[in-house]
Amino acid sequence: MDSRNFSAGPGALPAGVLAQVQAAVGQVPEVGLSLLGISHRSDWFRAVVRETERNIRELLGLPDSYAVLFLQGGASLQFAMIPMLLLRGRHKTAEYLRTGYWSAKAVAEARIEGDVRVLWDGETEGYRRLPKADELSCSPQAAYLHYASNETVEGTQFHGVPGRDDVLRVCDMSSDFLSRPIDVDKYDLIYAHAQKNLGPAGVTVVILRRELLQDVPTGIPAILDYRSHLAAESIYNTPPVFAIYVALLVTRWLRDDIGGLTAMAGINAAKARCLYDVIDQDPTFYQGRAAREDRSLMNVVFSLPSFELETDFLHRATQEGFAGLEGHRSLGGLRASLYNAVTLPAVEDLAQLMREFRRRA
Amino acid sequence: MDSRNFSAGPGALPAGVLAQVQAAVGQVPEVGLSLLGISHRSDWFRAVVRETERNIRELLGLPDSYAVLFLQGGASLQFAMIPMLLLRGRHKTAEYLRTGYWSAKAVAEARIEGDVRVLWDGETEGYRRLPKADELSCSPQAAYLHYASNETVEGTQFHGVPGRDDVLRVCDMSSDFLSRPIDVDKYDLIYAHAQKNLGPAGVTVVILRRELLQDVPTGIPAILDYRSHLAAESIYNTPPVFAIYVALLVTRWLRDDIGGLTAMAGINAAKARCLYDVIDQDPTFYQGRAAREDRSLMNVVFSLPSFELETDFLHRATQEGFAGLEGHRSLGGLRASLYNAVTLPAVEDLAQLMREFRRRA
Repeated sequence: MDSRNFSAGPGALPAGVLAQVQAAVGQVPEVGLSLLGISHRSDWFRAVVRETERNIRELLGLPDSYAVLFLQGGASLQFAMIPMLLLRGRHKTAEYLRTGYWSAKAVAEARIEGDVRVLWDGETEGYRRLPKADELSCSPQAAYLHYASNETVEGTQFHGVPGRDDVLRVCDMSSDFLSRPIDVDKYDLIYAHAQKNLGPAGVTVVILRRELLQDVPTGIPAILDYRSHLAAESIYNTPPVFAIYVALLVTRWLRDDIGGLTAMAGINAAKARCLYDVIDQDPTFYQGRAAREDRSLMNVVFSLPSFELETDFLHRATQEGFAGLEGHRSLGGLRASLYNAVTLPAVEDLAQLMREFRRRA
Repeated sequence: MDSRNFSAGPGALPAGVLAQVQAAVGQVPEVGLSLLGISHRSDWFRAVVRETERNIRELLGLPDSYAVLFLQGGASLQFAMIPMLLLRGRHKTAEYLRTGYWSAKAVAEARIEGDVRVLWDGETEGYRRLPKADELSCSPQAAYLHYASNETVEGTQFHGVPGRDDVLRVCDMSSDFLSRPIDVDKYDLIYAHAQKNLGPAGVTVVILRRELLQDVPTGIPAILDYRSHLAAESIYNTPPVFAIYVALLVTRWLRDDIGGLTAMAGINAAKARCLYDVIDQDPTFYQGRAAREDRSLMNVVFSLPSFELETDFLHRATQEGFAGLEGHRSLGGLRASLYNAVTLPAVEDLAQLMREFRRRA
């Protein structure tokens, strides 16, 4: 049934990865122990961390001027750590784009550390669209610009890169990390929790320009200071061994089975097209939430003309073995999340179900 | 080989638990999905969190005046969060017992938030012993007293409860949590990462008196504020679903298979006695590190007369299928960690190996 798991996260993982994880919970052959009983200080686990980092670097085309860290605490901890690093004591203003449920949470945490200007706030428009370039008056004096590349709740996604190249650009890529190639040079700090495209919940990847660490404010606890984690190669304290190992398997799958991020992006685009086509064929029945040009390729958010129809649809979908199609609890409606591990055939099956359901309704 | 895993952490887990985890990575029958693809907002996962909490309450005899939280970040994040909550802006001094590698780290993080007095510092004695009650002049004015109940690196463990009952008592129980019954009323805040007795790395349990949360200082990010996690029943952001599920299975095992903490403590005492007996039979060969009255039942730390003998011993142990017997990298030597899941027969086998090795040496 995992092949029909459209959950918004933790999301589906590739079947081949799950089989390898199952075997490793029994025994990691190179070590002779269960994955869950292996010391994080073992040579084996150090090699796991290094290969995971290497694979992410290769997939993204990341130069050595960026550090890659594996942390705990999810994107929510990054909401707090980033302004500690880049805003505290700077006498500058941080600019935030408030484009949905998640980027709004980031704003609240930044305000604890310093001055924040919300450059664009989509709330009054129900977060249905994203700002166009000419709607943003980014200041060259800003400490940094923060935005979320994809909003999972509302189903919007930036298809360009907002902001100025002479101001630090910080991006929450939690829900579309490794789903498509990115222009790495445009970013100074990228973060993403794992539980969408990269692995299970419990590990968060942070990619940042090493030069940002030359000027860290005082008074940051070691565990919240990126430098501690960098110096320890992400083994500052006991890391989430299991989650990092699964992430390793997923990066191998992305590289070897899928063929890299360009190939992945092609598949993801085809999957999204498949569902948006159904929506566009009868937009008064399947009502897409996001403005067309800002639609997310990861989270297709839509509603039906009545709550009863939505309940019927979910019931029907469950009968057919589909899971995770409920909308976010704050919005209701429906949502199909098309993370990397969701296959095109599964999405075609869902599109087929949607067409049939429309005919019968 | 996991039955002979004496790693100091992540440590061995019960074989029955590993088998259940393996099955759940394939599919959780009640949900029909892999454990790794189940939403943290599902009813199923909410029930997992609640049962894990209930089991811990039952095992420890915890009244409702205490909250139980499941967090990320390990004990190291608690080193920072605790002084944020209990020391910041208080104009009081926090008292710390510096009894080893881990409690020393806690001191450094507390100093960021306020005034800290190290009541006892065992470093000059190589952290070989713990303070006796009459060596501690605890102030009734202190913000709190912090100590670690068990030091994994040096192999010491408190067998009583230090401090005054009229001052908040905060205890890092990371390495002996759920290994024995405790007098819960004596504590105001207890924390423990999972990867010794409770489960795999990636989740940290915090138990605290609810009344401590009535007076939280300002300026604490939501993700570092215990109240956020309490209000959300430990699902404030995406929690480490996998690690919490494994912890659930371990608490069931402790209750149903072992019979609770009194039974567990009896087994743990027998395991430790088994090794310390070998050490005491020939203390010039197997040189126990800790003072006899402060010996840890969890981590038996010892050395041999030469580095060559230690290398030989490790080589021999590996041949016999034993793992994880190296000492901490800061100390060298040898260490056998006897966490809950290590069985008495496995410890007897190790004792036998030690006796044989002595005879041949």
